[in-house]
Amino acid sequence: MTETTSTTSVSAEQAAREQALTERVLDSFENTRDPRLKEVMQSLTKHLHAFIREVRLSEEEWNTAIEFLTAVGHITDDRRQEFILLSDVLGASMQTILVNNPANGNATEATVFGPFFLEDAPEIPLGGNIAGPAHGQPCWVEGTVKDTHGNPVSGARVEVWEADEDGFYDVQYDDHRIAGRAHLFTDEHGEFRFWGLTPTPYPIPHDGPVGKMLAATNRSPVRASHLHFMVTAPGLRTLVTHIFVEGDPQLDIGDSVFGVQDSLIKRFEAQPADTPTPDGRNLGDKEWARTRFDIILVRNDERQ
Amino acid sequence: MTETTSTTSVSAEQAAREQALTERVLDSFENTRDPRLKEVMQSLTKHLHAFIREVRLSEEEWNTAIEFLTAVGHITDDRRQEFILLSDVLGASMQTILVNNPANGNATEATVFGPFFLEDAPEIPLGGNIAGPAHGQPCWVEGTVKDTHGNPVSGARVEVWEADEDGFYDVQYDDHRIAGRAHLFTDEHGEFRFWGLTPTPYPIPHDGPVGKMLAATNRSPVRASHLHFMVTAPGLRTLVTHIFVEGDPQLDIGDSVFGVQDSLIKRFEAQPADTPTPDGRNLGDKEWARTRFDIILVRNDERQ
Repeated sequence: MTETTSTTSVSAEQAAREQALTERVLDSFENTRDPRLKEVMQSLTKHLHAFIREVRLSEEEWNTAIEFLTAVGHITDDRRQEFILLSDVLGASMQTILVNNPANGNATEATVFGPFFLEDAPEIPLGGNIAGPAHGQPCWVEGTVKDTHGNPVSGARVEVWEADEDGFYDVQYDDHRIAGRAHLFTDEHGEFRFWGLTPTPYPIPHDGPVGKMLAATNRSPVRASHLHFMVTAPGLRTLVTHIFVEGDPQLDIGDSVFGVQDSLIKRFEAQPADTPTPDGRNLGDKEWARTRFDIILVRNDERQ
Repeated sequence: MTETTSTTSVSAEQAAREQALTERVLDSFENTRDPRLKEVMQSLTKHLHAFIREVRLSEEEWNTAIEFLTAVGHITDDRRQEFILLSDVLGASMQTILVNNPANGNATEATVFGPFFLEDAPEIPLGGNIAGPAHGQPCWVEGTVKDTHGNPVSGARVEVWEADEDGFYDVQYDDHRIAGRAHLFTDEHGEFRFWGLTPTPYPIPHDGPVGKMLAATNRSPVRASHLHFMVTAPGLRTLVTHIFVEGDPQLDIGDSVFGVQDSLIKRFEAQPADTPTPDGRNLGDKEWARTRFDIILVRNDERQ
């Protein structure tokens, strides 16, 4: 009989007992009426058991896992979703995004949705300002929305949201402010433009069990600087994505939720104070920045 | 480009993007100082991503999973541990038991601990009664504790606990009763004997999210009838196990937590009313049962 630790192999007899158990659990799902649920539960069982067997999970480690999940459950409430955070930092959220948004020619890539979107953000006109009371460096953002054949998409709804320069979204304050979020519609040429804030890096909430896990594994909780977009238009697949800031040091350290795609890193050009603004807005002696994000949406009927 | 559903294959380009993400997440754990934690987190990542990719998990299914885990977290409190229940019904608890209690010659097999053990169960003398106020058919249980070389183990501590005939443990009642649990010590021949109750089947708590999952997958929440044992003695590996009742129909339907091992199924011999009892106890006109469980413990120094 061989020692059953992670560094040594397992006897054939022992491996057979473990495999037989896995098969008993797989069999228990055989009578599931919904074939998709059956497929998901059986695949989950197979991979969960493979993990336990591969690492030779100790009973103490199993206890730690139960305590960890219990703590994740207990910190989760209407305002904080620690299970999403856990999925995010394990790359499970981003992997789900990838699986559901397959590479599609020249179409703009998707990334994680995050927990800070609000349904009822205000509408602004083209060239309007999303910042509201949020502080930060003004940033002019412009671009076009087209389909994969190069046709401009007019009337596309562009939702944008971002953190302020202190790294907080409006919903993280207790005063019910609406700030750093809005929606607008593209014009007849598929163009959009608005004032926002130059994105800055911020940590995901890391005072809970997920933060402890990041600390124990020597990982940064910081997200690379980004500005969220969600673009919807009839007949086109909804795009949920961000743009990231070229030169942000966090891009090298690593985004804590693995949301970065190279194609989404954009140049944010610093504009010295007194540089004339595109719409004549007077920023006094404030520096500002500008960037461009041209978006390509996939038609529903070309999802393959 | 090929369709990314569970029934079709994925393009090479798409597979490469997904694999690259998995590797980014694996890399993020590279600086973990504790090598064991690094190993566990990287293996977990690998299997979690393999699951998502294999089933092509939809965003809606991911949402359902987050909601499910949130519900499991919120029903869990000091008295109810739904994460352990989830681990149990997925066979993860039993797989952990198997991994940590490898097949070892003639030694008695282990099984799941369950949530109903109490540290401070009363001591009874040899031949005493564990039932207390619990109702059920009286059952005489006897056996020996030996090591793998056949040497009797005297003074071994034998903890036993079980549900009453209504399927409830004492701790599931609100009246602080102690019933159906006790500990005793083997005599100089390694023998033990006590009165308990003939075990009956009962469902695990199934009014929560885990119960919903069992219903959705057409699985029985019922545990095969069993009597819990934990046996400890100096120099010997602690054994946590059950005995099951030969002929219990639930053995064919399937134990909801996969705790059954063939070697742990014992004959419980029905004794008609008026059959003399081993210790002269007068049971009036009550039927009773008897069973035998001979236990073999592994020496600490022979764990291999």
